[in-house]
Amino acid sequence: MRDRALRAIAECQRIAAMSEEQGRITRRFLTPPTHEVHAHLRRRMQSLSMTVQVDAAGNLRGLWQPEGAAGKRLLLGSHIDTVPDAGAYDGVLGVMLALEWVEIAQELHLSIPIEVLAFSEEEGVRFGVPFIGSRAIADCFDPPLLALIDADGLTLDAAIRNFGLDPEQIAKAAIGADVLGMIEVHIEQGPVLEAEDLALAAVTAIAGQTRVVLEFAGQANHAGTTPMHLRRDALAGAAEWIAAVESFAQSTGGIVATVGKLDVTPNASNVIAGTVSMSLDVRHAHDPTRATAVEALLEQANAIAARRNLALQCTRQLDQPAVPMDEKLTTFLAEAIEAAGFPSKRMTSGAGHDAMVLAARVPTAMLFLRSPGGISHHPAETVREEDVEAALLAGREFFARLAAKIQ
Amino acid sequence: MRDRALRAIAECQRIAAMSEEQGRITRRFLTPPTHEVHAHLRRRMQSLSMTVQVDAAGNLRGLWQPEGAAGKRLLLGSHIDTVPDAGAYDGVLGVMLALEWVEIAQELHLSIPIEVLAFSEEEGVRFGVPFIGSRAIADCFDPPLLALIDADGLTLDAAIRNFGLDPEQIAKAAIGADVLGMIEVHIEQGPVLEAEDLALAAVTAIAGQTRVVLEFAGQANHAGTTPMHLRRDALAGAAEWIAAVESFAQSTGGIVATVGKLDVTPNASNVIAGTVSMSLDVRHAHDPTRATAVEALLEQANAIAARRNLALQCTRQLDQPAVPMDEKLTTFLAEAIEAAGFPSKRMTSGAGHDAMVLAARVPTAMLFLRSPGGISHHPAETVREEDVEAALLAGREFFARLAAKIQ
Repeated sequence: MRDRALRAIAECQRIAAMSEEQGRITRRFLTPPTHEVHAHLRRRMQSLSMTVQVDAAGNLRGLWQPEGAAGKRLLLGSHIDTVPDAGAYDGVLGVMLALEWVEIAQELHLSIPIEVLAFSEEEGVRFGVPFIGSRAIADCFDPPLLALIDADGLTLDAAIRNFGLDPEQIAKAAIGADVLGMIEVHIEQGPVLEAEDLALAAVTAIAGQTRVVLEFAGQANHAGTTPMHLRRDALAGAAEWIAAVESFAQSTGGIVATVGKLDVTPNASNVIAGTVSMSLDVRHAHDPTRATAVEALLEQANAIAARRNLALQCTRQLDQPAVPMDEKLTTFLAEAIEAAGFPSKRMTSGAGHDAMVLAARVPTAMLFLRSPGGISHHPAETVREEDVEAALLAGREFFARLAAKIQ
Repeated sequence: MRDRALRAIAECQRIAAMSEEQGRITRRFLTPPTHEVHAHLRRRMQSLSMTVQVDAAGNLRGLWQPEGAAGKRLLLGSHIDTVPDAGAYDGVLGVMLALEWVEIAQELHLSIPIEVLAFSEEEGVRFGVPFIGSRAIADCFDPPLLALIDADGLTLDAAIRNFGLDPEQIAKAAIGADVLGMIEVHIEQGPVLEAEDLALAAVTAIAGQTRVVLEFAGQANHAGTTPMHLRRDALAGAAEWIAAVESFAQSTGGIVATVGKLDVTPNASNVIAGTVSMSLDVRHAHDPTRATAVEALLEQANAIAARRNLALQCTRQLDQPAVPMDEKLTTFLAEAIEAAGFPSKRMTSGAGHDAMVLAARVPTAMLFLRSPGGISHHPAETVREEDVEAALLAGREFFARLAAKIQ
């Protein structure tokens, strides 16, 4: 399996060179390097005796149909688009491992058809909306999305046509009732597995997420002439609240709460801050826990604003429920990890994935690989050979369990 | 005196119309509207039998020489340049009250020569360096300043020449030993007098000021996938420190400490802050108190950085000592306020003024007028008629004390 692991890593590095930018990995949805990736994957799929097509949403799909197998098919895959200046493994590794898993399935004479999906769009970079590829496959692509425009003023409709596809056929990309489930393998993109010295984890749920923009408004004033007791300092109020957010999240199990964006007006060293605008991002696998946390944090903001005589405006920008993964498939993955000789770990995904979109339609599960340094969306993103090998060993065990269940 | 107060206010409003911008008060150093202001003030000075000149630094100077008076002269005045989109009273009111004081002195047959100074440059807007006018008069104009360039790429040297003056004559603008002192009347630019319901105050000192730029550096990371206990959040560290700065300043008498500028990188709602850069502005009338405060605040920043595993960089940008006003002149002003029928108040100026520059050369004092709403550097800046009248009444009393001392 070590050779397969090395091949999967080498393939990710080869695909990393198929980029919009020299010396950086940037491959937005349906940009020219996508053709290169498709051609490369198509050859590889054909060498595995798979039937290959590109659907109207730009997803490359390879079907392996074992002789005489008539049952529902398993979906395996991840995305091939990237953020600007990305790493080589986010998404692509999931596609490469899917192909290695197909080869393993073939060796095991697994009689379950497998469709490998290279989703065209997950990151949401080009049109500002993520999951365009998986939405089409999960039959939740909303046709008005075709009017979205990219930075060059091109519509999604035109981008699809320019790529040689017909946007009117998108509905046909949707899967039917002949799918038994979906597995996505992905790097963790976080530091949890590394901190616990683990190679793999089965994902139990994609965390729900709330985004709020808060603005504290006080009174901009001269930093030299305004005594402390006569100030209405929006930044001092914001600082008190940010500290409260951190402390609340630290004492609530499994929650993450982040103030990542903060803008001060007028933002001058000798002027007391008049207004401060901030983002709040709260995530948890359990929706009521998240809702309660958001309420508590906004209440604290209100109390701080009232005590400091600041005005407070809160604008809720997103309230996305958690998406639980399929329990049976997740248990198979967790058991497979253990059977392959690794400690079994279950965890929540704090980031969104194509699996989240597919889960609305078919039983779906995810396998995470350790992210060294917790780094992703960055050229320094990497994976360990032994972890990739572990994912292959777990794949073999997973197939054994799946086959036993189906027979 | 009420009519004189109304006239002084009307004159400020007239001069406000002499602006670089239609509908906004913007009059940077030696821009064309300065000629208009000079012409207007020159007529007014001449009507008061004053001898008028413009020195090579662009200061308009009117001398009233009482018949037979041979002693040292008193300087009175303030600046006529403004910040962009300014109010009508910052600086200009001090010049207008100086002229009213001259008329009062004439009525009192005060036998002390008075030179009214309309400083050309105090705000530092055009060349990024303040006090260009008062530096020349106080003989601390540094010739390399002539190489400064404005936003249009024009040097200070060229700007002076374009205005019709000769920069090589700047040294001749300096005052000699024949000056007995300097009084600047200015709006407070802060909320202290309003909060205490007072019209006037004698200024005891211009606060010293320290400016430091601090940068906390942690680790930018995914807001969804990085659990709270594995974060190195630069903004959470910054917030803790900003709260500490405020709390320290609130418990230290007379100090003001401000974090007014804060920049987050990468500043995205779904990314934990990697670095935060902040300004610290600390002011106090007593230099050792300020120095101790700055040390304590930087020590707190260090402790926070160490506990949170953040890197900390501190760059000291300014360490400007406090400038005490002349005790005798300040006492005269304080007594004059009381003799005019108002509660006597002494206070520190948190902002810099031309008086600060002159104080290095001659006994100097300042009289503050209440700033309604504490507002300055803003079109809403205003003064109350009764406070302007109070300043005129105090001027008459001040002259009585000055004359008694000199005779």
